[in-house]
Amino acid sequence: MVRACLYRPRGGSGPGRTTQFDATEIPLSQAFVSPRQTARVADIADRRRLAESAHATDGHYLSMDGFWEWLAHRREAVRMDVELIPLADLNRWGFETGTGNIVHETGRFFSVEGVRARLGGEGGATWDQPIINQPEIGYLGILVKEIDGVLHCLMQVKAEPGNAQGLQLSPTVQATRSNYTGVHRGSAVRYLEYFNGPQQGRVLVDVLLSEHGSWFYHKRNRNMVVEVTEDVPEHEDYCWLTIGQVRNLLQAEDLVNMDTRTVLACIPLDEASTAAAPIGASAFQTALLASLPSEAPAVHALPELLRWFTDVKARAELVSERIPLGSIEKWITTREEIRHESGNDFSIVAVSVSARSREVTQWTQPLLRTRAEGTIAFLARRFDGVVHVLVHAGVEPGFADAIELGPTVQFIPDSYGSPLTAGYQPYLKEILAAAPEQVRYGVTQSEEGGRFYQVLSRYMVVEIDHDVPAHEDFRWMTVGQLVALLQHSHYVKVQARSLIACLQSIW
Amino acid sequence: MVRACLYRPRGGSGPGRTTQFDATEIPLSQAFVSPRQTARVADIADRRRLAESAHATDGHYLSMDGFWEWLAHRREAVRMDVELIPLADLNRWGFETGTGNIVHETGRFFSVEGVRARLGGEGGATWDQPIINQPEIGYLGILVKEIDGVLHCLMQVKAEPGNAQGLQLSPTVQATRSNYTGVHRGSAVRYLEYFNGPQQGRVLVDVLLSEHGSWFYHKRNRNMVVEVTEDVPEHEDYCWLTIGQVRNLLQAEDLVNMDTRTVLACIPLDEASTAAAPIGASAFQTALLASLPSEAPAVHALPELLRWFTDVKARAELVSERIPLGSIEKWITTREEIRHESGNDFSIVAVSVSARSREVTQWTQPLLRTRAEGTIAFLARRFDGVVHVLVHAGVEPGFADAIELGPTVQFIPDSYGSPLTAGYQPYLKEILAAAPEQVRYGVTQSEEGGRFYQVLSRYMVVEIDHDVPAHEDFRWMTVGQLVALLQHSHYVKVQARSLIACLQSIW
Repeated sequence: MVRACLYRPRGGSGPGRTTQFDATEIPLSQAFVSPRQTARVADIADRRRLAESAHATDGHYLSMDGFWEWLAHRREAVRMDVELIPLADLNRWGFETGTGNIVHETGRFFSVEGVRARLGGEGGATWDQPIINQPEIGYLGILVKEIDGVLHCLMQVKAEPGNAQGLQLSPTVQATRSNYTGVHRGSAVRYLEYFNGPQQGRVLVDVLLSEHGSWFYHKRNRNMVVEVTEDVPEHEDYCWLTIGQVRNLLQAEDLVNMDTRTVLACIPLDEASTAAAPIGASAFQTALLASLPSEAPAVHALPELLRWFTDVKARAELVSERIPLGSIEKWITTREEIRHESGNDFSIVAVSVSARSREVTQWTQPLLRTRAEGTIAFLARRFDGVVHVLVHAGVEPGFADAIELGPTVQFIPDSYGSPLTAGYQPYLKEILAAAPEQVRYGVTQSEEGGRFYQVLSRYMVVEIDHDVPAHEDFRWMTVGQLVALLQHSHYVKVQARSLIACLQSIW
Repeated sequence: MVRACLYRPRGGSGPGRTTQFDATEIPLSQAFVSPRQTARVADIADRRRLAESAHATDGHYLSMDGFWEWLAHRREAVRMDVELIPLADLNRWGFETGTGNIVHETGRFFSVEGVRARLGGEGGATWDQPIINQPEIGYLGILVKEIDGVLHCLMQVKAEPGNAQGLQLSPTVQATRSNYTGVHRGSAVRYLEYFNGPQQGRVLVDVLLSEHGSWFYHKRNRNMVVEVTEDVPEHEDYCWLTIGQVRNLLQAEDLVNMDTRTVLACIPLDEASTAAAPIGASAFQTALLASLPSEAPAVHALPELLRWFTDVKARAELVSERIPLGSIEKWITTREEIRHESGNDFSIVAVSVSARSREVTQWTQPLLRTRAEGTIAFLARRFDGVVHVLVHAGVEPGFADAIELGPTVQFIPDSYGSPLTAGYQPYLKEILAAAPEQVRYGVTQSEEGGRFYQVLSRYMVVEIDHDVPAHEDFRWMTVGQLVALLQHSHYVKVQARSLIACLQSIW
């Protein structure tokens, strides 16, 4: 729901503070009277307040020490035991007659089906693979609220069966439609009403973005940030952190989950205030901050990049269609897994889960598993004092639009790989050969533990200062250009959004 | 292919002329040395030159009188006889065994299949309908070249079987992959090499845009403008016109075809020079020009509109899947057509075509036909001296992303309509009741004659200055905001793009 607000600069701001605004809700019709005074001003004011929160590296609700202490307590209180089981031991899940798809008895949640992909024109490569089908739009939402005048995010610690280390830091709400329409027979999704219900707050971010196109068929979530001003009920699994605190936690291994990372990447930045490098910033940090404004001097202007992207999409012409899981070729079903006949690539496995928080719950479900820790990396380079990252326009069969922009390298060792990944890693050597002082970011993070079994990757940003061979499907872009594009659907892959969030932890 | 050019302001420009630039092609790697001097400057220079051409209402190749004379000659030289025939008389086309789809014997071109659509959640409406499937990315390309220092577009007069009046003004190239890979056994597509071959010129526009989501399944074309500097072979079916000349021809009934209109809408405008109203401009024209800059004062800021659009998309949750034409429900196949059992809505018919230009060709093909002239209209209103149009975020089953932004009204009388169109025309009365002095544009135009049989609509822009009831799926937007969005895929419907081109004929 869109509401109109009238914004007035708040009097009495102290020195050194950015202007504060008072918002009064007004009828939508009145918002038409003088456009200049409404939406635009509100937008600028919101960006400023979000930037203030990003600069707040300690919180007014919990200090960082307090956070770690709280997390340790939650780790004691919440337990989840996960065990790999034979596929035949799945309970309430089974192979559907006729198709061989793995489906839930309610027909809800998700299913594991097949996809047949074919690359452009005659003679284009063709391959089959399993794919997770979940034709629902879910919510990844962070609730924010001012505490002592600074925006704080309501973050959740959450256990998922695929998590390698138990608890992770999740958005306030992480819900598929099956979750929140009660198929779980469990409790309602906490805080959901602030995102889609009568208590909805002011929407600061709301963009529909894809997830892993190699593993999900057309999956998308609303990435949302919603602000409330009223009191919100507390709950032991949730705490308020500034954006700066959450960003800093990206320096910890496997703690900030994928869903949080993608929402963080969508938060609009007040370019004027973030681009000024703080005292003591390194040359790289300064060049990184200079890369944030969408209008930063760039190797390629944005219109030129868009034309290039169209050309790559038109040339690739990937056609992919869902087919029954039972009819995919070159994949075999064993007792424990559905795997490629080569023994490489990912597999579909089953787990039994026993979770204890206040109450004990038990269930089984399929998960997607990879065989080794991956590498997800940007090559970075400064041009005219502005950091650029080398972006790959990569085809994945589950993308609604076939191609999105991703990291320079997205690599899983021992991956049979579709024709897309097999051998096509022109910059992998640069990443793996990087000297420690070139590694601007290098921390292991995981993909979504609700669908993926301990899928871990080393997320890296590696700076170079020499020429690398050009490839048609790669382009140097500023961070600001990538962020400008992820305001729209169908542009920036979840792995690249994760890396953007990771970069935020070092500027 | 992306190339790099170095741009230098050209010396000796006369008074009153905008700056001209000399471009020298340089290795791509050198373009990295000083980003500021390359892409951005080129982009600004291109916009200026395009704006100059848009202001040129008479041409250096043909005057308007000359154009009409030339067109009359072409009309005499080119003839196409089209006759409705029984479906069974289709030659080289037939109903595929098993599916009942209408397919070409080569399996190429397009096919007529079925689609089953379901609107969000439980209890959402469901309906079946035929749909044209053409999983190829085609080209809609206009070649431009400076003549006496002013950019001219190479326009084609072209006959299509569905054209109501024979010849229309088409882009230089209008080709599907089936066309240009020689399935036609005919001649190669003329001038295509400038868009995708070794002779490719400088790409000024290249964006992948949808076509009718109610009639095509996921159809998209590259909308391109490419500049050449060298001589181009002449051909009797082509002439060079300025952008201003083509725009003015939108005041003629059913002459500028749909493909030309959508490419026109994509041409970036030099906002600074177009926003200055010429002497003698009406108040509406002045307010229309003020609406062009993407940053014009607007009722809703663009980020707010994007959030609204996400919300509409997430709430609608249209799921559509292709099904065999033979299994669609509530449609019947008669001797002459496939039609809805109500006798309303569109139908699939067959035609026999005999074309005479230099050689005679003869073929049959299916076409989609509607039963009455439609109305495609924007309500327009000035807010703070800036024209806004009322945009509808409308669901269509053939859109890859379910919803795009379209006209206020998109209406076909006697249309049974899916649940989407049936009765849901909240602003139709405003359009039909408009007094003549409110009608800023009102000319009959047609949809693409290669697939649609005499599908004509009155394209209208109606200005109001009173409040109208608000509807959740409608928002007031500036022209500049719409144009900013159509730089990306999945935002602006072809009907809205046509209306944008029509608006260009009146400023």
